[in-house]
Amino acid sequence: MYSVSVRSHMMIAHSFRGDVFGPAQRLHGATYVVDVEFRRADLDADGIVVDIGRATDALGRVLVAMNYRNLDEDPAFKGRNSTTEVLARTVFDRLATAIRAGELGPGANALESLRVTLHESHVAWAAYEGRLS
Amino acid sequence: MYSVSVRSHMMIAHSFRGDVFGPAQRLHGATYVVDVEFRRADLDADGIVVDIGRATDALGRVLVAMNYRNLDEDPAFKGRNSTTEVLARTVFDRLATAIRAGELGPGANALESLRVTLHESHVAWAAYEGRLS
Amino acid sequence: MYSVSVRSHMMIAHSFRGDVFGPAQRLHGATYVVDVEFRRADLDADGIVVDIGRATDALGRVLVAMNYRNLDEDPAFKGRNSTTEVLARTVFDRLATAIRAGELGPGANALESLRVTLHESHVAWAAYEGRLS
Amino acid sequence: MYSVSVRSHMMIAHSFRGDVFGPAQRLHGATYVVDVEFRRADLDADGIVVDIGRATDALGRVLVAMNYRNLDEDPAFKGRNSTTEVLARTVFDRLATAIRAGELGPGANALESLRVTLHESHVAWAAYEGRLS
Amino acid sequence: MYSVSVRSHMMIAHSFRGDVFGPAQRLHGATYVVDVEFRRADLDADGIVVDIGRATDALGRVLVAMNYRNLDEDPAFKGRNSTTEVLARTVFDRLATAIRAGELGPGANALESLRVTLHESHVAWAAYEGRLS
Amino acid sequence: MYSVSVRSHMMIAHSFRGDVFGPAQRLHGATYVVDVEFRRADLDADGIVVDIGRATDALGRVLVAMNYRNLDEDPAFKGRNSTTEVLARTVFDRLATAIRAGELGPGANALESLRVTLHESHVAWAAYEGRLS
Repeated sequence: MYSVSVRSHMMIAHSFRGDVFGPAQRLHGATYVVDVEFRRADLDADGIVVDIGRATDALGRVLVAMNYRNLDEDPAFKGRNSTTEVLARTVFDRLATAIRAGELGPGANALESLRVTLHESHVAWAAYEGRLS
Repeated sequence: MYSVSVRSHMMIAHSFRGDVFGPAQRLHGATYVVDVEFRRADLDADGIVVDIGRATDALGRVLVAMNYRNLDEDPAFKGRNSTTEVLARTVFDRLATAIRAGELGPGANALESLRVTLHESHVAWAAYEGRLS
Repeated sequence: MYSVSVRSHMMIAHSFRGDVFGPAQRLHGATYVVDVEFRRADLDADGIVVDIGRATDALGRVLVAMNYRNLDEDPAFKGRNSTTEVLARTVFDRLATAIRAGELGPGANALESLRVTLHESHVAWAAYEGRLS
Repeated sequence: MYSVSVRSHMMIAHSFRGDVFGPAQRLHGATYVVDVEFRRADLDADGIVVDIGRATDALGRVLVAMNYRNLDEDPAFKGRNSTTEVLARTVFDRLATAIRAGELGPGANALESLRVTLHESHVAWAAYEGRLS
Repeated sequence: MYSVSVRSHMMIAHSFRGDVFGPAQRLHGATYVVDVEFRRADLDADGIVVDIGRATDALGRVLVAMNYRNLDEDPAFKGRNSTTEVLARTVFDRLATAIRAGELGPGANALESLRVTLHESHVAWAAYEGRLS
Repeated sequence: MYSVSVRSHMMIAHSFRGDVFGPAQRLHGATYVVDVEFRRADLDADGIVVDIGRATDALGRVLVAMNYRNLDEDPAFKGRNSTTEVLARTVFDRLATAIRAGELGPGANALESLRVTLHESHVAWAAYEGRLS
């Protein structure tokens, strides 16, 4: 199995509902350093997993929709918590949609799975990984 | 698959038996930066993998039993080497016991597996991963 | 010159006023990984720069006052931007006050200067350093 | 599953053929920070995955053959691009050959799989992982 | 003293002349992760050291002139080695010129000094720091 | 001012005397990731601060004398604590002696100062810096 990973980041505000969150129930924020791993069984004719320029651009479009925003006001998270786990899944789903829409080029059809990791500090991070249908 | 990871550390002394260890047969020590990845298929109603506060506390209790100690004198490692690999397994087993005992809360029943990584330097680390029964 | 450094973090929300900030004029947030370097010319009789336990506790008290909060509502930043630079200075000033108040122990009188660095992402950080009067 | 990982690096020059590479079609270079993860189900009698000294030496021999060289002149990459993905596979194949040849000691027969990761910058990396036959 | 730092990178090929360089006399390459620290005594009216967007853009223009190139063919390094130290100085000089030319905005006149660090691997880096005239 | 830095590490056991150390009064250990920064005002004719191979070798000789040892039994630390600060100074002094003895080559005479940093974990480190006489 081959993979290529790229790193970017976003800076957002949000708050959580639920006693389990303690002081994080207050409005606060986070820098999420975002790693996306693109995976496939074999390389294409150029010897790559994916066009890294297109992959980076697609990730950038996903992040710009959340970056420098208060996610409490984002309809995508209405009625649920925008936890690190939920945001990892959100980035996964939106990248999967971009891949299916051809934004990463025709060769991206061969991608089999993604792993999205969001680092919220030097001591905590969350990830979602899944197959691309 | 979702995961949440937390990082902590411990500082211990020990020595190894066996020619393969060379100078590490002498009494020496290590800082282990410890990463624990908690995994499950779906999030709970709060949108999380595990109560990260409880998970961090449980990891702290596991590490405090070894931290600032000479592991050569710890009965848990009598007759065997407390290598990085063995210590990763030890942390795994003790956290698994804590999860089964309910220390991470009832929601932790849904955890499926753990990966425990111990970094012994900037150029070497070891891990143990396994399912939670 | 000797120094000892410790790392902690805080997660806050805020917004900035001024065209120079572009999209950061919106309410957003940040994880700040905070490094504090304590400096002095000579070590004390124990062979240390400062009681690292007390230093860490004092830093913790400084950060808890801002952690998991919306700094736009903090009177300390009324009428000015809580930029990374301003926050580095704020941490410096509050730690200097704690040192003068004896919170780091009597040996901390020998501390000569501090450097406070706030990492806002993997590609940007700010610092303030100054002498302790 | 247990694993042990070691880190090393190499510094090479190369160029790529194919419009997808944009400016990387020109002769340029890279530092590759190379991580190799060695995996097996159980530990040996010494409590280790592999003799880390032998593993590091074997990795060193693999890297010295490429280090400080222009890979465009290396017959191993004639007619194809020495992308980060291709280099990860090359390191994998050569380490697998060394393991089969007994260079990591007889205990290395129990190794089941390897993961080779090449970091080309702080924001991009590639990996190849596979089973050892 | 306040500072703001930004990180970027470039990937180049080059070779060195001189027995001291050993195998690095061959054509090889490097990824340089580049950190630039901008320093001044006081903040501007917005509470910042420099417009970080303009600073990042200026650094980008400096790096693009060397990125994805063979520095042996760059007239700027004719007759001398493009060592990590020399490249750190080159980035410093070109950024200093950009600051004097007003590319970082009028507020950048208050910048007092820069420190440019080039990381060539996880175990080696070089820096040049100096005052801005 | 130019500088070049190299990174290495050592793994030692020790204990401390003094109530301030709490549980670290017990025999424990540490991995020290050691960074040494070599500084001088101008580069030599080859365009470097120091022969990095010789500098790395000299650092290796300094560290091997402490690596994989119990520093409580090292006469160099008899009657005092081998704290991170003291060890940073020890590495500084021994490297300074090596430089004066010509171990880093005649060009190393131009070195003006060193900074030695010992990282004891991901959240704590100490340094000693001073001029070379």
